[in-house]
Amino acid sequence: MRTTVAIVGAGPAGLLLARLLRNAGIDCVVLENRTRAYVEQRQRAGILEQGTVDVLRACGAGARMDAEGLVHHGIELRFDRRRHRIGFPELTDGRSVTVYAQTEVVKDLIALQLAEGPPLLFEARALAVEKPESEHPVVRFTHEGRERTLDCDYVVGCDGFHGIARAAFPDEVRRTYERTYPYSWLGILAEVPPSCDELIYARGEGGFALHSMRSPSVSRLYLQVPNGTDPADWSDERIWDELDRRFATDDGDWSLARGPITSKSVTPMRSHVTEPMRYGRVFLAGDAAHIVPPTGAKGLNLAVSDVRILARAFDHHHRTGSDELLDSYSDLCLRRVWQATRFSYDMTTMLHSQPGENAFDTRVHVARLHRLAASRSAAGELAANYTGLPL
Amino acid sequence: MRTTVAIVGAGPAGLLLARLLRNAGIDCVVLENRTRAYVEQRQRAGILEQGTVDVLRACGAGARMDAEGLVHHGIELRFDRRRHRIGFPELTDGRSVTVYAQTEVVKDLIALQLAEGPPLLFEARALAVEKPESEHPVVRFTHEGRERTLDCDYVVGCDGFHGIARAAFPDEVRRTYERTYPYSWLGILAEVPPSCDELIYARGEGGFALHSMRSPSVSRLYLQVPNGTDPADWSDERIWDELDRRFATDDGDWSLARGPITSKSVTPMRSHVTEPMRYGRVFLAGDAAHIVPPTGAKGLNLAVSDVRILARAFDHHHRTGSDELLDSYSDLCLRRVWQATRFSYDMTTMLHSQPGENAFDTRVHVARLHRLAASRSAAGELAANYTGLPL
Repeated sequence: MRTTVAIVGAGPAGLLLARLLRNAGIDCVVLENRTRAYVEQRQRAGILEQGTVDVLRACGAGARMDAEGLVHHGIELRFDRRRHRIGFPELTDGRSVTVYAQTEVVKDLIALQLAEGPPLLFEARALAVEKPESEHPVVRFTHEGRERTLDCDYVVGCDGFHGIARAAFPDEVRRTYERTYPYSWLGILAEVPPSCDELIYARGEGGFALHSMRSPSVSRLYLQVPNGTDPADWSDERIWDELDRRFATDDGDWSLARGPITSKSVTPMRSHVTEPMRYGRVFLAGDAAHIVPPTGAKGLNLAVSDVRILARAFDHHHRTGSDELLDSYSDLCLRRVWQATRFSYDMTTMLHSQPGENAFDTRVHVARLHRLAASRSAAGELAANYTGLPL
Repeated sequence: MRTTVAIVGAGPAGLLLARLLRNAGIDCVVLENRTRAYVEQRQRAGILEQGTVDVLRACGAGARMDAEGLVHHGIELRFDRRRHRIGFPELTDGRSVTVYAQTEVVKDLIALQLAEGPPLLFEARALAVEKPESEHPVVRFTHEGRERTLDCDYVVGCDGFHGIARAAFPDEVRRTYERTYPYSWLGILAEVPPSCDELIYARGEGGFALHSMRSPSVSRLYLQVPNGTDPADWSDERIWDELDRRFATDDGDWSLARGPITSKSVTPMRSHVTEPMRYGRVFLAGDAAHIVPPTGAKGLNLAVSDVRILARAFDHHHRTGSDELLDSYSDLCLRRVWQATRFSYDMTTMLHSQPGENAFDTRVHVARLHRLAASRSAAGELAANYTGLPL
C-alpha cells in the first residue's frame, strides 16, 4: 500500500488533516487502531474556538455543527459566592465560541471521509514508523489479521501521547516538558437541561466546579476531586450536593437543576509538551505532541490549529515544491502550543484549590479572579486566549 | 504629651500621613526610633506611580521631585536575548511613572515637617500601644533618656514589619499570609550614567537582572543571587561580568557602561499581608501591614495609597463626625494590597529562575514574556498594574 501522507490516528486531528489534504488534492490514508464505534463515542472536549468553527465549515464539515452547535458569547466566573460574566465579543472584536462536542465533530468527519475518501481503515493497528529520516518512510501495521506496510513520503502522527509516531523520534532529539496536577476531574453527563445558558467556572468552597452542556437537554458537569478518586464512591446525591456547595452564590436566586446521571468518569490533569514536533519526515499533531488540562478548553483547538498549519504546508509544497513551510511547522506550532499551555496552566491553578495550599497562594488566586471582574484589560486577555489566539 | 493622631514611624507612610493631616487641620505627632541621618539615607525603592506623584505634588512636597525626578514612559523586557519595550501612556490613557528615590521623598517630607510642623521626634523609641480598643489609646515611648507617653484618639502604625503597632493586634484577630522566595537581590549603586533611558527587566542566562537608575549620573543595578549570599563574595568585576551575561541580547549593539561601585547590598525577597489593617483605634499602613518583593515597584506606592485612604477617612471624620470611612479603611486598602501583592508575585516569578525549577515552569514563564511582547491586552494589563491601579 502506498500514499503521499500516512496519517496515524482518526481523532479530530487525523480526520481533519485527511479532509484538508483531500480538498487540496493530496493523497493520504488514515490508519486507526480502534473500531469506528469506539472512536465515535469517546467523550472529550466540547468548546470550539472561532478558528476551529471556521475551518470545519470551510472544509465542508460544518453543516450539523451549524445546525446543532450552541454559540456562546461569554462565560461566568464564580468565586467568593459572587457571579461575574466575561463577555467575549465586546472584548475581542466580535469573537465567540461554539459548544459542539468533539465526539460529534469526529462523527461528522468520519461520515464525510467514508463517503468521499480518502481511505480510512479502522482496526488498523500501527506498529512502528520505519526510516523516519528517509524520503520514503514506512508505517508497519496490522489489519484484518495480517501485517502490512504503508509506504509514503510523509507520516503524520495524530495518534496521541502513547502513539508510535512520537516513539519514532530518537531520545536525543526529543525534549519533553511536563507537569501533573494534584487533582482530577469527576465528570458527569446528566439528562437535564443546563441550568445556565453559558459555562460557569467556579472556585467554590471545596474546590473547582464547571457547569457545561452537551445540548439543550444534556448537562455536562465537573467537580475537582483528589487524584485516585473512584467514581463509584460518588453517589448521584453526593455529586449533586457537592455541586450545589461549590456553585453556591449570594448574587441572585440561581439553583442547579438535577436529573438522571448517565455517565461518571474521572480524568487526571496533566500538561505535556514534546519538542520538536517534526523529525525527518515524521510530523506530530494534537495530543501526540502536547496535552493540556481541560480547564482552558484548548486540547481540541490546538489539534485543529496544528493540522491547519500542516495542511497549509503540504499544500504549499504540493503546489510549489518548496519545503519552507514544512520546515517551519514545528516552530510555528510550538509558539502557539506554549501560549495555550500557559493559558491552560493559569486557568487551572487559578480555579482549583490545591491540597495543602499555602493560604497566601489561595489569596493570590482569588485576587486574580477579582482582577478579572474589575479590569477590562485583564478580562480582555482572558477572552482573547479563551476564544483563540490568531494562527 | 497629647495629640489626636499618634503616628509611629517616619518613613514615607508616616511622614506623608502627617503632612496630609496637617493640611486637613488635624493634630498629630510623629515618633521615629532612628536618627534623622539614618532615616534619610536608607536605600529603598525609586519608582513613583502617577498617583504617588500627584499626592506629593498636591500636598506641597513635589518641588524637588518635579525638578529632579525622571519621568519614564515605559520599561524594557529582555528575554531569550530579545528586547521588547512596553510603552505606558499608549496602553493606559496617558499614565507614566517617575524615577525619584524614596530616600529623596523622605528628605523632602522631613524638611517640610521640621519647618511647618506637626511635631516630629527622632530617636523616640516607641515601646507599646496601650488600650488599643479604647477611645483614648496611649503610646509609650522613650525619648532623651526618659520614658514618656503620648495620649491620643488614634494610633497609626507606620513602623514596619517589626513595629509595635502590629504587635498590639491580638493574635486571635490577626491573620497573616506569607511567601518567601528562594532568591535574593544583590543591589549596587554605581557612579556611571545609566546605559538606557528606561528600566530593563531581564530574564537572562543565570537569572534575573534589573537595570535602573537614581539620577542621570548614578546607575542602580540588581542581580538575582541565592539566598544567604555575602556581597563580599562578589567583586566589582564579577558583578559587571554577570550583569553583561544576563543582559546579553542579539537585538542591536547595546552594552552596559561600567563605573565605580559605591554600594553593594543583598536583599531577601518576601511577600507578606496582615489582615485586618485596623484593630480598635490602631491602624496599620505601609510595611507594617504588607511587604512585597521589589520586582513590581509597589512597596512605596502601596504605603502612599494606604495613607491617602486613611487621611481621607480622618478628614471625613474631622469634618462630619462620621466613622464610615475609618470603618471601611481596612477592607478598601486590602483590596488594593492584594492586587499589588498578586502583581508583584507574578512579576517576580515570571522574571526569576528558580533553583531546581521544573523545565516546564521555566517555559511557561518565558511564554508569558512572549505573550507580553505579542499582545496589546497582555501588555496593557502589565502597564495598568505597573503605573498603578486607581485608588
